[in-house]
Amino acid sequence: MLNYYWKEEQEKNWILEETYFDDRHQGKCESIMALGNGYLGLRSSVEEPYIGQTRNLFVAGTYNKFDENEVTELPNAADIIEMLIDINGELFSLKNGKIHHYSRRLNLKAGELIREVLWENSTGERYHIIFRRFVSLADMHLIGMKLEITALTADAEVILRTGINGRQTNSGVQHFHDGDKRVYENQFMQLVQRTTQSKIDFVLNSTVKMYMDREKVECKTSYFLERRRIHFNGQMPLKKGQTLAIEKISNIFTSLDNDIEIDGDLEELKTISSEHIKKNSKFAYDELFEKSKDQWNLYWKEAMIEIQADDDFDLLAVRFAQYHLLIMTPFHDERFSIGAKALTGEGYKGHVFWDTEIFILPYFQYSFPGVARQLLRYRFHTIEGARNKAKKFGYEGAMYPWETAFTGEEETPEWAAINIMTGKATKVWSGLKEHHITADIAYAVWNYYLSTNDEVFMDLYGSEIIFECAAFWHSRLEWNEGKHRYHINDVIGPDEYTEHIDNNAYTNYMAHFTIKAAIELYDSAIHKQWDNFKCLREKLRLKEKIETYKTLLDSIYLPDPNEAGIIPQDDTFLTKASINIEKYRDSHEKQRILKDYTREQVVNLQVLKQADVVMLLFVLRGSFDETVKRANWEYYEKRTIHDSSLSAAVHSIIANDFNEYEDAYRFFRKAAEIDLGQNPVSSNDGIHAASLGGIWLTVVMGFGGVMNDNGILHIHPKLPKTWRKLSFSLYWKGERINLSITKENVEVRKESEREMDLFIMGKRYILFKELKINDR
Amino acid sequence: MLNYYWKEEQEKNWILEETYFDDRHQGKCESIMALGNGYLGLRSSVEEPYIGQTRNLFVAGTYNKFDENEVTELPNAADIIEMLIDINGELFSLKNGKIHHYSRRLNLKAGELIREVLWENSTGERYHIIFRRFVSLADMHLIGMKLEITALTADAEVILRTGINGRQTNSGVQHFHDGDKRVYENQFMQLVQRTTQSKIDFVLNSTVKMYMDREKVECKTSYFLERRRIHFNGQMPLKKGQTLAIEKISNIFTSLDNDIEIDGDLEELKTISSEHIKKNSKFAYDELFEKSKDQWNLYWKEAMIEIQADDDFDLLAVRFAQYHLLIMTPFHDERFSIGAKALTGEGYKGHVFWDTEIFILPYFQYSFPGVARQLLRYRFHTIEGARNKAKKFGYEGAMYPWETAFTGEEETPEWAAINIMTGKATKVWSGLKEHHITADIAYAVWNYYLSTNDEVFMDLYGSEIIFECAAFWHSRLEWNEGKHRYHINDVIGPDEYTEHIDNNAYTNYMAHFTIKAAIELYDSAIHKQWDNFKCLREKLRLKEKIETYKTLLDSIYLPDPNEAGIIPQDDTFLTKASINIEKYRDSHEKQRILKDYTREQVVNLQVLKQADVVMLLFVLRGSFDETVKRANWEYYEKRTIHDSSLSAAVHSIIANDFNEYEDAYRFFRKAAEIDLGQNPVSSNDGIHAASLGGIWLTVVMGFGGVMNDNGILHIHPKLPKTWRKLSFSLYWKGERINLSITKENVEVRKESEREMDLFIMGKRYILFKELKINDR
Repeated sequence: MLNYYWKEEQEKNWILEETYFDDRHQGKCESIMALGNGYLGLRSSVEEPYIGQTRNLFVAGTYNKFDENEVTELPNAADIIEMLIDINGELFSLKNGKIHHYSRRLNLKAGELIREVLWENSTGERYHIIFRRFVSLADMHLIGMKLEITALTADAEVILRTGINGRQTNSGVQHFHDGDKRVYENQFMQLVQRTTQSKIDFVLNSTVKMYMDREKVECKTSYFLERRRIHFNGQMPLKKGQTLAIEKISNIFTSLDNDIEIDGDLEELKTISSEHIKKNSKFAYDELFEKSKDQWNLYWKEAMIEIQADDDFDLLAVRFAQYHLLIMTPFHDERFSIGAKALTGEGYKGHVFWDTEIFILPYFQYSFPGVARQLLRYRFHTIEGARNKAKKFGYEGAMYPWETAFTGEEETPEWAAINIMTGKATKVWSGLKEHHITADIAYAVWNYYLSTNDEVFMDLYGSEIIFECAAFWHSRLEWNEGKHRYHINDVIGPDEYTEHIDNNAYTNYMAHFTIKAAIELYDSAIHKQWDNFKCLREKLRLKEKIETYKTLLDSIYLPDPNEAGIIPQDDTFLTKASINIEKYRDSHEKQRILKDYTREQVVNLQVLKQADVVMLLFVLRGSFDETVKRANWEYYEKRTIHDSSLSAAVHSIIANDFNEYEDAYRFFRKAAEIDLGQNPVSSNDGIHAASLGGIWLTVVMGFGGVMNDNGILHIHPKLPKTWRKLSFSLYWKGERINLSITKENVEVRKESEREMDLFIMGKRYILFKELKINDR
Repeated sequence: MLNYYWKEEQEKNWILEETYFDDRHQGKCESIMALGNGYLGLRSSVEEPYIGQTRNLFVAGTYNKFDENEVTELPNAADIIEMLIDINGELFSLKNGKIHHYSRRLNLKAGELIREVLWENSTGERYHIIFRRFVSLADMHLIGMKLEITALTADAEVILRTGINGRQTNSGVQHFHDGDKRVYENQFMQLVQRTTQSKIDFVLNSTVKMYMDREKVECKTSYFLERRRIHFNGQMPLKKGQTLAIEKISNIFTSLDNDIEIDGDLEELKTISSEHIKKNSKFAYDELFEKSKDQWNLYWKEAMIEIQADDDFDLLAVRFAQYHLLIMTPFHDERFSIGAKALTGEGYKGHVFWDTEIFILPYFQYSFPGVARQLLRYRFHTIEGARNKAKKFGYEGAMYPWETAFTGEEETPEWAAINIMTGKATKVWSGLKEHHITADIAYAVWNYYLSTNDEVFMDLYGSEIIFECAAFWHSRLEWNEGKHRYHINDVIGPDEYTEHIDNNAYTNYMAHFTIKAAIELYDSAIHKQWDNFKCLREKLRLKEKIETYKTLLDSIYLPDPNEAGIIPQDDTFLTKASINIEKYRDSHEKQRILKDYTREQVVNLQVLKQADVVMLLFVLRGSFDETVKRANWEYYEKRTIHDSSLSAAVHSIIANDFNEYEDAYRFFRKAAEIDLGQNPVSSNDGIHAASLGGIWLTVVMGFGGVMNDNGILHIHPKLPKTWRKLSFSLYWKGERINLSITKENVEVRKESEREMDLFIMGKRYILFKELKINDR
């Protein structure tokens, strides 16, 4: 029961609300209402325990591998959220007594989770209970919780039990050695755990304080230690009408943290973290929360998008996306990137895919270019892993793994779920054959450069990525003597329902793009005489390579549209049989088609999991005209189940390009509803990070019509029928531009008076400080 | 809410019943109603999930160590018990709707767990639901479950979800690698797991069948695979008045099993276990259960004890003990022994203590001598571990570890719970200083021999144990020149609240016993010219050793009673201060005294955790007269908190010896109530194996007055006031003797006419076939 239409004017379009608690479907709100700050992610499981609950606390980058048969994953740290609340001998539970009022809500603006319950216990006494929780954006280690209990009808004795529980697992997998547990200064709890294989130390500290009607009080306290957990028991009498406030402040530090210097010394880590909790325990929840809220305010000031539309949901959806895009991004440390489920669930084990570069990076590139730069540095940081993979498969340069974690080695599992009937595991081909990611990364680096002019980054980090990706593609090309062209055989494109295909259009075009970018980059670097480039040129023998690339570039086979205007997804796709896929579209069940067809059968049908040629139309949006876009969208969309969350957003953007506004809006909503929709189980394993990036893409690059065409900014807005106004800011080559778009006008404004070349609705303009185009 | 007074005549004194389900205290019935067969132990957690539930499935001997900082423990295998029962869209739960009738009961006679619920769901429809479950005594790998649902008021759609769930942990510790999971022949589920360090393979298979009004029906079936688990979903419509029966048959095999030959070949293990489930799936639950029940009947026929008493509880308690004594004992394999919590919980990690030899072995020695022999072979099997420990500490012979598992190495944790305030771990001294176990084992072997005359066992296994234990004690003695005696310094006796003491009476007497037994054994073996003994004599250089033992035996210091008749527990005990301990006795809290006093303070007080000198009076029961027994019992009992479950039974037996019948009965009840009493949390970590042996000891050796005094059988019954009759059987030197005791008579009967010397109530008799002593 989700409500997106918060009534109070002040917080309108800032609140996701759950109005009814259904213990059968806890995963949804645990994920979509998750808290975080890029360093840590905390799933929003409720305080009191229920069957079906998943408690998750992840710290970015702290991967561990349980054994050699399993892939590395983000370990689930000790839980600090659980609270057992005993009121007059009865444990508070939404399944006991009567619930007269229930509201759980995430305040996107302030980054606070609030739950309000008017509870009547089984003997008829009423209590008003409010839970609050935040993960600090002002201090990445800090988590605050507050619980207020008002006894409405009678006196009560409250016993609270809460602590640090290191018995958490990842679905049964224990990633930690048990470590020290202690209580110090009679008020702080500390628990240490170390990952079993990566040997990362985690230290968590918690402390609990109580206030009666806002006055600090001492309760009857005891502490308990058990295997892998420690907890506090506090007892407090409460008179009718009084409000007891309980505040729990916790922190988490790891030996991987880059904001402290411990030289691998666990004792030092314990000391630093205890000093931190002691310092913070001097402040009340509200004070600590205010500091975090201030940071959120700064963020929203920078990132604010305004939408005036008939349906308030649209603005809420983009804010929801922006909220999660911030909390999922480890902007504090360039050694990490973003997992496919961010830090909100165990899905995909925290691994990094092409999702980051293609779906998420543009948001940061245009809104916080420094963060985009950091995210791309992750690919530089892990380039050795990519070189290893290339070597392993007999290629040159850098072949980026399909899934990566900390080291940059390939982390894609080799085997997926066992086919239930044969008892045999299904081979996962993505890690072996889904090569386009190596082009996607080069593409992202090149576009980052074109839109930011960040030469320092390019010279130090970006160039090496692009040159090494190009070297991979060069070695990957296969000369086809008959066709007199370079082919790329036996790959998987973005559409993962097709495997082992030759000349996947998306892959071929993107490989071509990469080699072409390398050539342009080389010429530019020579021209600009970059410092680091001189060494790089020697190290990578670029001169000869670029010469070769120049001679072969035009011989790379780029599938043209056929007579019907259709770009063949691959050499054989158009010859395969089609089936009616209506029943599989919009199914709440994951990959529903695999219940009726085997994987092998699906591979031999014209059935797409997700956009593939449409994806190509999106990434090389400036290279295809409206006719091609329409023909291919219409042909392929009919055959696409949209079983991937990456599909909807690009369909929206391309539909807008050929002026099918209703389709564009429909797919925008579809993208927004991947997490916010009514399917109660689809977010169980975590939110869909790429899809959240996609929501922003549809708004800014779709409806806002922003396009980076080879370093030239194009703005061609086409608002949905129900939207009256869209305004947002973006960074372009170091300058912040404000756009305000209505049905009638486009206004573009920037701070400096430096001239900027740009296209608005296809016409070239020179922008100094302000431009207003009326009468569109 | 436990009821021990089952009304139906036929099953009277055979049923433990829970009449109200309290989800806050699930551990009690999970433990005391556990099922098993010595090979496996299955905790009786209910089918549907609740917070606070502990699912445990252990296979004897399959120890694993998670990491070097943790001790080895019995790993918790995959769960097969969980069933989610969806009736018309609502999950069955005792927390939803109304419970009109509830009864969960363990039938001790048949080894079956039954739960009956009359449930009204939240929309007012009523269902009668019966759960049944057994662990087969006829086939050690087999577990059967049956669920019957009758729709009383309306039609219903039932969806059952159940499978094999390998996400179980030991309080957060995962002991298994994930293994293959498959469904075969469209009806059998199989899950494989391998322990991480000991590399033991587990294979579990399950299959589900449905019957409508006793006719087999096919339901709408699907199977699901997830990480570490596999499950079945079956859907079935049910008309008002119909009964749907669901049967789930499961098995478990491990690569340690001694009834199969697999040569470490996992595929072979998988095949054997699938053949097994296929074969058994041809039978209905009732048929499989009948086979198991037949075995239970045979057991009870052999082991039957009759008590006619005012309170039916007394008979139920001894049956409860006998039930658990059977299911805890790995009589199928001499490589294993009995854990302190049997196979019913994670407490003490499945480790073996002196509990087996001193508290449990007598039951088997007198009732199933072959099982006693098997249990003692475990100590022979692990003698190398004991030799290693002796070497490590600079002693000779075999020094048995305080806690052992599979290998016989010391498994006692070095550090216990951290002192919550100092943050420092408490050192555990038992593994280092509690040496009496090496005497206890020799004592048990010697007494087994004296009561069975099992010369083959003694020649092959028992002698080596006794000689090596004696060699240890010889090397352990310290000559005190001043006292001109051998002392044993710096030990812990049975009373673990006293540490680092010199000349613990129990230890000294038992060490003396061991050396004396070695001397007698040697003379006897020479005399009887045992085969194996000849080699052993050479190997262990026994001739010289025994000569030495003979010269020093009488110089071992055995503390005599002082003027007040008190045997000092150790050299300093009687000089320590006493305190009032009333508030700590019978506290439901574990080791309550340690909340008020530090461990160090307790060590320096006259405060006992458990019987120590009284324990000595029990093991050498024939060596002390009534005056000494009374004086010491009265002195020490006042100072004993009985914080150990080993304490009550021996207090009962000794009180009976000096004719304090009320105390004897009171302590019998206290022993019985350790698991059956009203403390709802004391059995959480499992039942108390030694205490269950103790219940039998109080009945047969206490009230029945059976005593083995150096190879002579004494029978000196003293029935409690409320008992009218006690009858039981026992094996003595290969013959089965039936005893029937009333207030007036003692009848002794046996099969053969071979003459047997024995003492009845202190008078010597020769028994041929029958003896009846009237007018006691």
